[in-house]
Amino acid sequence: LAPGAALTYRLTLSYDGTGFCGWQVQPGLRTVQGCLQEALSQLIKAPVAVHGSGRTDTGVHALGQVCHFRAATTIPLERMTAALNARLPRDMAVLEAAQAPAGFHARFDIKEKTYRYRILNTPVRSPLLEHYAWHVPDPLAAAPMAEALERLKGTHDFAGFAASGSPRSTTVRTLKGAVLRQEGAELALEFTADGFLYHMVRNLAGTLVEIGLGRREPSWIDAILAGRDRRLAGKTAPPQGLYLLAVKY
Amino acid sequence: LAPGAALTYRLTLSYDGTGFCGWQVQPGLRTVQGCLQEALSQLIKAPVAVHGSGRTDTGVHALGQVCHFRAATTIPLERMTAALNARLPRDMAVLEAAQAPAGFHARFDIKEKTYRYRILNTPVRSPLLEHYAWHVPDPLAAAPMAEALERLKGTHDFAGFAASGSPRSTTVRTLKGAVLRQEGAELALEFTADGFLYHMVRNLAGTLVEIGLGRREPSWIDAILAGRDRRLAGKTAPPQGLYLLAVKY
Repeated sequence: LAPGAALTYRLTLSYDGTGFCGWQVQPGLRTVQGCLQEALSQLIKAPVAVHGSGRTDTGVHALGQVCHFRAATTIPLERMTAALNARLPRDMAVLEAAQAPAGFHARFDIKEKTYRYRILNTPVRSPLLEHYAWHVPDPLAAAPMAEALERLKGTHDFAGFAASGSPRSTTVRTLKGAVLRQEGAELALEFTADGFLYHMVRNLAGTLVEIGLGRREPSWIDAILAGRDRRLAGKTAPPQGLYLLAVKY
Repeated sequence: LAPGAALTYRLTLSYDGTGFCGWQVQPGLRTVQGCLQEALSQLIKAPVAVHGSGRTDTGVHALGQVCHFRAATTIPLERMTAALNARLPRDMAVLEAAQAPAGFHARFDIKEKTYRYRILNTPVRSPLLEHYAWHVPDPLAAAPMAEALERLKGTHDFAGFAASGSPRSTTVRTLKGAVLRQEGAELALEFTADGFLYHMVRNLAGTLVEIGLGRREPSWIDAILAGRDRRLAGKTAPPQGLYLLAVKY
């Protein structure tokens, strides 16, 4: 390698969102991007800017967030993961470091993303899941939620499920996967799409819970999709149930 | 009910041990017993002493800790759980409140206890399990660990697995259940016994991991049981992997 030749690297990250003010760097706040840039800059001994696949909000977790950066470094790839993890705080970790093609971009090149939303459906809250699931005390019926998920699948204008006022060129997305898993008193909603609008998964979760509680019918989904108005859908589910599982390129 | 008639109550508790200096009240420290006594005393408007089934150390979790207290209160039993949970910090909760026979004692009347010890066996640590499992980076072989567990089952003198110097009348215990569950990269050891010695589960976990790593044979268990010397066994596994699951009376 010629000295000083900058290469593109791709990192897969996991973090516990509880102690971070979300992904994006903000002056004076502890963020995932901020901590990662600090560790990388220390390691590489030069300022490094990382670009994530997308932001996550305060309290939102990641099992497979992806980001990229460009840097000239002599650190061998096989040592980068361990070297970074030694410098990162304990509530975040690099799972994999890989070299990427020169033009790779963690946000622009996404093929699909998968999110999980965890719901704890017990009368009493669980201290061990306080920061890791949404506690819904009233009983949820899984069947109508599963029916609602079927109605969500496919290519639709998801404007009704997007935070109002958030900027985007189009609100049409293709939801390839939308499944409900039940394990004991825990429900997990899993969504795979070519992209997600801001707050989309949390708005979907909030809406599906209304249906599970029997306050609305599964056909409500069709009305929200057709109406394309955020005010038609359910409330935004809290951040701590949300996990970014994987990003595919 | 005659006013002032004290009754005995049994509470089942769950807590995230991360933020507590263990179970037992200690001046100036945040403990589970301390927080519970404070909430109960507020609710009942009189000082209340709670008696746990046993102590848990700093960082150790509970899904089914049991304790009892005696108090004269007009609060109906069916409202006690909600009333207490509204007063307790978010990292602990009462799962059930029940009336108990007058002579019931949460420690002396135990028939059996069940503990789980969680191990994450991945090359890279997991930020989401930082406080909830022991991270063992080198690969563990489940078969010799399961064989070791079979050797542990039954009635033995477990002195070799007890913290040295801890007071007790006998170190003989009957291990009724000792199983290994594997789910993906996670191993869970589950132990059921008529009682456990101080640090016994963590010492068992530390010893079993040595066997899983191939540093020792399963027959090592027999030598530790026969030798009855703490120095013969493996190191004490860290507290954050340990969960008190249930106490039976």
